[in-house]
Amino acid sequence: MSSKIVTISREYGSGGKYIGELVAKKLGIPFYDKEIMEKIAEETGFVNEFIERLAEYAPSKSIFAYAFVGRNSLGESMEDYIQNVQRKIILDLAEKGPCVIVGRSADYILRDRADVLNVFIHGGEEEKKKRICSLRGVSEAEAVKLMRDIDKKRSVNYKYYTGQTWGNIKNYILSLNSTEIGVENCAEIIAQVYKL
Amino acid sequence: MSSKIVTISREYGSGGKYIGELVAKKLGIPFYDKEIMEKIAEETGFVNEFIERLAEYAPSKSIFAYAFVGRNSLGESMEDYIQNVQRKIILDLAEKGPCVIVGRSADYILRDRADVLNVFIHGGEEEKKKRICSLRGVSEAEAVKLMRDIDKKRSVNYKYYTGQTWGNIKNYILSLNSTEIGVENCAEIIAQVYKL
Repeated sequence: MSSKIVTISREYGSGGKYIGELVAKKLGIPFYDKEIMEKIAEETGFVNEFIERLAEYAPSKSIFAYAFVGRNSLGESMEDYIQNVQRKIILDLAEKGPCVIVGRSADYILRDRADVLNVFIHGGEEEKKKRICSLRGVSEAEAVKLMRDIDKKRSVNYKYYTGQTWGNIKNYILSLNSTEIGVENCAEIIAQVYKL
Repeated sequence: MSSKIVTISREYGSGGKYIGELVAKKLGIPFYDKEIMEKIAEETGFVNEFIERLAEYAPSKSIFAYAFVGRNSLGESMEDYIQNVQRKIILDLAEKGPCVIVGRSADYILRDRADVLNVFIHGGEEEKKKRICSLRGVSEAEAVKLMRDIDKKRSVNYKYYTGQTWGNIKNYILSLNSTEIGVENCAEIIAQVYKL
């Protein structure tokens, strides 16, 4: 299928981000997640652009003024603006060359390209809980709450920005249960399908 | 994950049955589908048992009498009875040893076993349509109708007998788009995960 881009959507705690990093390493291509994209947004001046636009209309020059305005000069909410910035960054990154992108509705944003391998990673509740406890240093009860809240947010955001259902089997070329298959093996299978 | 049984659920036209046959061949284990299970049902006397039970209560000794009775002596509808027979056959087959089972809600029927690799195969509409036209010798319009009707029936039956949603990503350890990945490669990946 001659893939160039891998997008990974994942349940919170499924190890999807780590799997993405492993895939990128195996394939020798860059890896991008939320944190990296936020950094790119700062570096490329997208954030400054937002603040400047805002400043034109906001009653004060402070970013906090935004809270009282609610919309920038294009009528975008803060969240819509961030989504739009991320969309532009993802399209730019995909244009630059092969890479692995985790989250950010990248599967939808890149839907017009024929060279995208869309992957979904999910897992068993117990194993996800354990992973979250260990990575975040939280109690089991907190881990359960985090899983529920974060996946709900991902699902709602995905629906809002794409009109599609998050985790719909048809949207992914490959879906893997990382608890049953193991994170290393998941990465191996993804790299293998990428090379087909 | 030390699998013994592979269950394959699939969209009509996705090549899931053929993939199942390839997996069974690769692993050197038996393959079972609807036709084979119907034969087993006949051989094991399940079907006779049904006719006999029916005969006790039906006004005539003919199977057609069933149409007027609607239920057998256990109050089962014909469809419930067939489902129950298939359930027993699938549990027996899984008990006997490693095998590949296509369809028949086998993933749900074997849910209490820890050694089952549940797989879902789906595909692109165009490729599925082409496969159906070529295999069944029907027109494109008929293929589209078959796809819609058969998958709807699978979905409704699955819901009725399992209470779950057919094609829910969480029910499968592995889900593959056979159009993008290719049927041979799908079989290879399934065999590989089976051996983990």
